Amino acid sequence: MNAEIIAIGSELLLGQITNTNAQYISKQLANVGINVYYHTVVGDNSVRLSEAIDQAQKRSNLIIFTGGLGPTKDDLTKETITASVGRSLVTDQEALDSIEAYFKRRNRVMTDNNRKQALVIEGSSILRNDHGMAPGMVFKDNGVYYLLLPGPPKEMEPMFMTYALPFLLTQLDESAQIVSRVLNFYGIGESQLETELIDLIEAQTNPTIAPLAKDGEVTIRLTVKHENEVEGAKLLDELEKKILTRVGSFFYGYNETSLTKEVALVFGEKKLRIAAAESITGGLFSSELTQNPGVSEFFVGGVTCYSNEVKQSLLNVPKEVIDEFGAVSEECARFLAENVRELLKTDVGISFTGIAGPTEIEGKEIGTVFIGVSKLGEQTRIYPIKLAGTREQIQGRSVKYGLYCLLKQFS
Amino acid sequence: MNAEIIAIGSELLLGQITNTNAQYISKQLANVGINVYYHTVVGDNSVRLSEAIDQAQKRSNLIIFTGGLGPTKDDLTKETITASVGRSLVTDQEALDSIEAYFKRRNRVMTDNNRKQALVIEGSSILRNDHGMAPGMVFKDNGVYYLLLPGPPKEMEPMFMTYALPFLLTQLDESAQIVSRVLNFYGIGESQLETELIDLIEAQTNPTIAPLAKDGEVTIRLTVKHENEVEGAKLLDELEKKILTRVGSFFYGYNETSLTKEVALVFGEKKLRIAAAESITGGLFSSELTQNPGVSEFFVGGVTCYSNEVKQSLLNVPKEVIDEFGAVSEECARFLAENVRELLKTDVGISFTGIAGPTEIEGKEIGTVFIGVSKLGEQTRIYPIKLAGTREQIQGRSVKYGLYCLLKQFS
Repeated sequence: MNAEIIAIGSELLLGQITNTNAQYISKQLANVGINVYYHTVVGDNSVRLSEAIDQAQKRSNLIIFTGGLGPTKDDLTKETITASVGRSLVTDQEALDSIEAYFKRRNRVMTDNNRKQALVIEGSSILRNDHGMAPGMVFKDNGVYYLLLPGPPKEMEPMFMTYALPFLLTQLDESAQIVSRVLNFYGIGESQLETELIDLIEAQTNPTIAPLAKDGEVTIRLTVKHENEVEGAKLLDELEKKILTRVGSFFYGYNETSLTKEVALVFGEKKLRIAAAESITGGLFSSELTQNPGVSEFFVGGVTCYSNEVKQSLLNVPKEVIDEFGAVSEECARFLAENVRELLKTDVGISFTGIAGPTEIEGKEIGTVFIGVSKLGEQTRIYPIKLAGTREQIQGRSVKYGLYCLLKQFS
Repeated sequence: MNAEIIAIGSELLLGQITNTNAQYISKQLANVGINVYYHTVVGDNSVRLSEAIDQAQKRSNLIIFTGGLGPTKDDLTKETITASVGRSLVTDQEALDSIEAYFKRRNRVMTDNNRKQALVIEGSSILRNDHGMAPGMVFKDNGVYYLLLPGPPKEMEPMFMTYALPFLLTQLDESAQIVSRVLNFYGIGESQLETELIDLIEAQTNPTIAPLAKDGEVTIRLTVKHENEVEGAKLLDELEKKILTRVGSFFYGYNETSLTKEVALVFGEKKLRIAAAESITGGLFSSELTQNPGVSEFFVGGVTCYSNEVKQSLLNVPKEVIDEFGAVSEECARFLAENVRELLKTDVGISFTGIAGPTEIEGKEIGTVFIGVSKLGEQTRIYPIKLAGTREQIQGRSVKYGLYCLLKQFS
């Protein structure tokens, strides 16, 4: 089944909202092996929508529409599709009852234009809207499936998962299973990774290899089609082994994970308690860790030592160290990591000091960063790095690098 | 000028990322009166991209491409466009130098495929990439403008604002001036704000009034078209005055500002030094403040007191307070705000304690938050709030509310 998604709404073309519906639906379809080849957005305009439908009919056998099912004059998706396929609109009594009940529950008067939402395309299967008024619908015409979904994500997403996707799966040929796996890497650029794997990438057919760069990380998605799920997974195992032999030192986890989640796993399992001293990152390391629930088991807190004063008074960095080497130095990073660990009585202390810009400090270049990791009873390690990017990127990448150091050192 | 946006990237069709680029560009174009009639997404496939170009040439005179300018084999935007317009690719020496310098700065070896990023379409104006390697470009062919931008939003957005939009504006008919102004509000919902202004919104023609909700804030964009810029600005002044008479108590700043930027202005001007004690927000308040450069003038740092242990040992919250009232209490917020101010010797201390979820703590509901603001010589104020949303939203909204309290109390 080859699909495309047409989103209807002038608010999308004005940039007032993002087309998250197309992403959501695409992701779900990718999981079940339905290819999506196009996303299109048109405004609330029947001429342009009609042209988009004409075109889609020629190249896809599943056309998914989102938006334009509401009560107002500019909602014209159903009207335009019926004109295109030569069907008519009929009132669906169940939908009308449900709309009337919706207003009753809220003690509001139902205005007449709301009846429009109960009109459905003749011969279609109705998809109930459990979170709003406009029902969805699906029908097949001339070998093409037409799936109409409401625009608001809060209505569309549950309708898609509960009613639309199960319907589509019953229509699919079920002989081939799709198995996919994502490998997450840190510390290697997309182009270098591709260079290391170029022969595998060029030879790919089934499984396929898709690298993707995001926020200083790279992921590789491996996907295989196979009649037997177990056999498909074996093919992925083999390919993964080849890949990790070459770039395994940069690999940190599978599928929907993140550096913070992996750190949480390792520190949680090993019952290692950690505290942070943050200068350049200004609290970002702590903040990213605490976005995940349950981190209080191993993360007790930290000190944001943005000024040198706080580095000296609270974290006992000797004045001579700052005078001689500067606050952005290996020496300062060492004191910060060791002393925050002692101050907060944890097993591990991590520190971040550096220059995020926009101006140089202490005659050191923007992007100069020192990360210190201190463990009770072990020698403190200092990781000096050079980062590029905007102020925010340098802060964000410092945090990621720190997480990566923790993983490499403790897992 | 009629525009359309073509985004290229299989990761979009797989639903791995959202097409935020189309939204961003559409919004900027709407502001200057350029109509966008279509968004299209195609994968890394030259046949389908080529068809999309053919179609766009027939209906638009500005085609904006995002993505596919990178170093890898599946980046084929430039190659496909040159084939379509019959031009060739040439190496841009400046871009090549800049790519080489990029690798040098990072002490990394430049792999050969990176040279591909310095290839540009013959006869185009080059748009510098200040945040990545692949340059953008723009050229006119047969009455149609082709604008090529990189895919990563962190590269695309600054390139669009700094280089592409000014270029487009010089090509536009300049007889009518567009003057626009954004008013930023916090603490009022979009629907309530619309209700307060409904008569003004319904009567709008020129200037126009466009409310937009984002991240718990609401903005109103006022836009006027006028032959004379000064006269246009006067019309905006009059409308703004009417709006602020009604909802001025929620207004906090103009145009591209943010609560953190406004707080930085106030505390910088008044030379008030501040420190933070963060429990529920886990460092997010400090991290958001320090995303802006120059905050070290007034922000010295803080303590992330994620565990009760740290609240007691480092911030001297009496054990009895935690035992009797809990860590999530007015009393605890007061001690945290006052003691972090004393510990770090600042004029102001702010504290955040609460429950972000997913589980209740101390028998208190998720979303219960206490913010304390302590000023030397003044009575400490406690702001108790109830927030809804996910864990991350509750943390984010706590920070925003804290910033808002600081603004209301000190500006």
